[in-house]
Amino acid sequence: MKIIYDLGMIGLGVMGQNLVLNLADQGFSVAGYDRDKSKIGGLKGQQSVFETADLKEFVSLLQTPRAIMMMVPAGNPVDSVIQDLLPYLEKGDILIDGGNSYFKDTNLRIQNLAKKGIHLLGVGISGGEEGARHGPSMMPGGSQEAYARISPFFEKTAAKVDGDPCVDYLGPSSAGHFVKMVHNGIEYGLMQLISETYDLMKRGLGIDESKMHAIYDQWNQGELNSYLLEITAHIFQKRDISGKLLIDDILDVAKQKGTGMWTSQSAMELQVPDLNIDIAVDMRDLSMLHNQRTLLSKTLKRPVRPLKENGFVEQMAHALYGAMIVVYAQGMAVLKAASEKYQYGLNLETIARIWRGGCIIRSALLEPIREAYRNNPELPHLLGDPIMSEKIMHTDEDLRGLIAKGVQTGIPLPGFMSALSYLDAFRSDWLPANLIQAQRDFFGAHTYERIDANGVFHTQWE
Amino acid sequence: MKIIYDLGMIGLGVMGQNLVLNLADQGFSVAGYDRDKSKIGGLKGQQSVFETADLKEFVSLLQTPRAIMMMVPAGNPVDSVIQDLLPYLEKGDILIDGGNSYFKDTNLRIQNLAKKGIHLLGVGISGGEEGARHGPSMMPGGSQEAYARISPFFEKTAAKVDGDPCVDYLGPSSAGHFVKMVHNGIEYGLMQLISETYDLMKRGLGIDESKMHAIYDQWNQGELNSYLLEITAHIFQKRDISGKLLIDDILDVAKQKGTGMWTSQSAMELQVPDLNIDIAVDMRDLSMLHNQRTLLSKTLKRPVRPLKENGFVEQMAHALYGAMIVVYAQGMAVLKAASEKYQYGLNLETIARIWRGGCIIRSALLEPIREAYRNNPELPHLLGDPIMSEKIMHTDEDLRGLIAKGVQTGIPLPGFMSALSYLDAFRSDWLPANLIQAQRDFFGAHTYERIDANGVFHTQWE
Repeated sequence: MKIIYDLGMIGLGVMGQNLVLNLADQGFSVAGYDRDKSKIGGLKGQQSVFETADLKEFVSLLQTPRAIMMMVPAGNPVDSVIQDLLPYLEKGDILIDGGNSYFKDTNLRIQNLAKKGIHLLGVGISGGEEGARHGPSMMPGGSQEAYARISPFFEKTAAKVDGDPCVDYLGPSSAGHFVKMVHNGIEYGLMQLISETYDLMKRGLGIDESKMHAIYDQWNQGELNSYLLEITAHIFQKRDISGKLLIDDILDVAKQKGTGMWTSQSAMELQVPDLNIDIAVDMRDLSMLHNQRTLLSKTLKRPVRPLKENGFVEQMAHALYGAMIVVYAQGMAVLKAASEKYQYGLNLETIARIWRGGCIIRSALLEPIREAYRNNPELPHLLGDPIMSEKIMHTDEDLRGLIAKGVQTGIPLPGFMSALSYLDAFRSDWLPANLIQAQRDFFGAHTYERIDANGVFHTQWE
Repeated sequence: MKIIYDLGMIGLGVMGQNLVLNLADQGFSVAGYDRDKSKIGGLKGQQSVFETADLKEFVSLLQTPRAIMMMVPAGNPVDSVIQDLLPYLEKGDILIDGGNSYFKDTNLRIQNLAKKGIHLLGVGISGGEEGARHGPSMMPGGSQEAYARISPFFEKTAAKVDGDPCVDYLGPSSAGHFVKMVHNGIEYGLMQLISETYDLMKRGLGIDESKMHAIYDQWNQGELNSYLLEITAHIFQKRDISGKLLIDDILDVAKQKGTGMWTSQSAMELQVPDLNIDIAVDMRDLSMLHNQRTLLSKTLKRPVRPLKENGFVEQMAHALYGAMIVVYAQGMAVLKAASEKYQYGLNLETIARIWRGGCIIRSALLEPIREAYRNNPELPHLLGDPIMSEKIMHTDEDLRGLIAKGVQTGIPLPGFMSALSYLDAFRSDWLPANLIQAQRDFFGAHTYERIDANGVFHTQWE
């Protein structure tokens, strides 16, 4: 008697293993494969789960047409797995790339595999190890028909919000990976803002970590409720084996895996301004230049000046709320433009809905964001929604106040500043870009448009 | 009798034509080619210049080994010209791409042509029409031996500063186009800053254009002396045929050709923070969303609040000076990183030197920047130079004051804010990036480094 498994999982790292366990919990049988034999055995004793380092055996154990999920690092490893698999696959089989693949790579792979009658679904999965194990948010894209065939795997294992699974078909080709990329871009933007509040509390107000824990915890109970604030509160009470607070011994050098950078680069290609995501990438890069910072701290000496409390923490909470809205708005604007350019046909309400649970950027804010797109699926800009607009107007002066004070202390606040710049620029019916066009026409004959006539014009300026 | 010409020029648009005239002034004979017959005839009557729309004839008129400059739009047109030319070329011929080609394209073209024994020099040319005609700044890269053979064309036609030509061999492969790309990125950053001063004067102080002309003109007489301020002063006195000031009728929508975006994208790949260039690209993109701005100006209503003069214009001049230094510093940092990664072997002193004249970003500041790299060719960061550092310290409080006031008015100042964030972050021996690493390790097991031990660490946070 041969057991046939519902689904195959390639890559038995922590994410892959946890997804297998999650699938098994939901009653699916899963065959797992990893070419690294040392990864085999982690699922031992698990019912309806089989592990092997033999690819041929692995494929032979799967129900046809096959559904095979890959949880391997983005880039060459994905192509390498596909190459190894191809000889064993048949028309109608469905590959699922659950990693953070670059969306243009996903497009190419889908096209190449389609020639062989094989489907590739690009699925963004967010929620980290914990999400993978107990319910991530999943962002599938590719062939709608292929997705329909295997949607139960996703719907049963996804996080639920009021019983509603945090997964839905998003669109053709690389739609899923594009949406996940922007999810991560938003994540970068939010993390940068939170790190700035930490800096204001630490160097500006001289608040100690246990009080920071209490502040973030309190924030997380209110309108700022979000996974990132929840874990931030946790972080400020985590102690080392020595009893010292761990956060104080972590080096201030932020790494990245590239999805934030891709979001910035892609937004620029789409000509969508996303200042907060750009500067979040910049600030991670800047943090890495520790030697240069140490050097310049000596020549550009200006010690941080203390802030007065005087309601500053509350002002900071309001400012953070407003700035978080701006970050989500920037991400949504990138998605809207991508949907048009790449013909993804994205439904922004669906995206806000499946981000409400399971993923890293889940927050109470995603409910009114979802409402905004439910009320008006064609909403030109999230900040044009009446509720969002009211929230922004309500936090606007606190955002300004926070920056005005931060400027004097010397604490860098590029996230808050970018959020305010974005707001003040978008609310400006007029911007000084006419001067830029005049300069471009002056030195490069690049022409300009006029407010009093149609067409393009060039002037001999000298 | 057949006349043989020193150099060929492909593409007889304004830039190509002006370079031909410049070369002819310097005693070189030039054959020009354009496949568009309507472009032929613009150089009629010019001594030692010949024009044709017949490619075979064009090539046959050139001294061998040939030197052929292409002044055609970046992208496919360059490949198309090369394809057309190839059948007529011989080993040892030198092609010169004088356009704003993407540096990775230039690398590919150099490799492909090298297989046929043909050299391609990627040469960035800055200075617009006027520069092309009377002396641009030129940034050649590629084979050093090929450059040596034709360097007189460049040295004689380049702008001169104290007799020193604004051209020099910069490095192998795409070094020239990379440097020109970053030149343009700096240009974006500077133009954004200047546009913000205009906005502060117009909407903040209510200064009229004739006074703005006087202010920019005065700024241009002092330490802010630069081509961009010079033309800005001109712009504020240029009147339309109707007698109205032209600037007021130019639409506030800033366009771009892509070099700023490429700089941002490339800096991110190199992991070099260049906040000012990123947000300058963002702000051009944002300016283009005129409909959304009009919409949001109604829902996010907050009229700009007037500023008090009280020495504000002088404060603005200081802030602009400091912020301009930051923009150059960001560009230099990108060049330094690119030089290492792409093995360009760039000499930053040389680059500052050839930017002192002819190009769009020429300014009095490039003299001390040159000094900085002359005094220390291995300077880790421009702001680490004692003179630069002193200038920054001198303008620092004015930059802060300008932003504090701008925040209250509601005028977007992302350029000034990015410059201050960059300064305050680089002078911070400690940054809150430890929190970002803790969060990443919390949700994604991405590990972190410690200040009290070597290695990478992971914590079970919950």
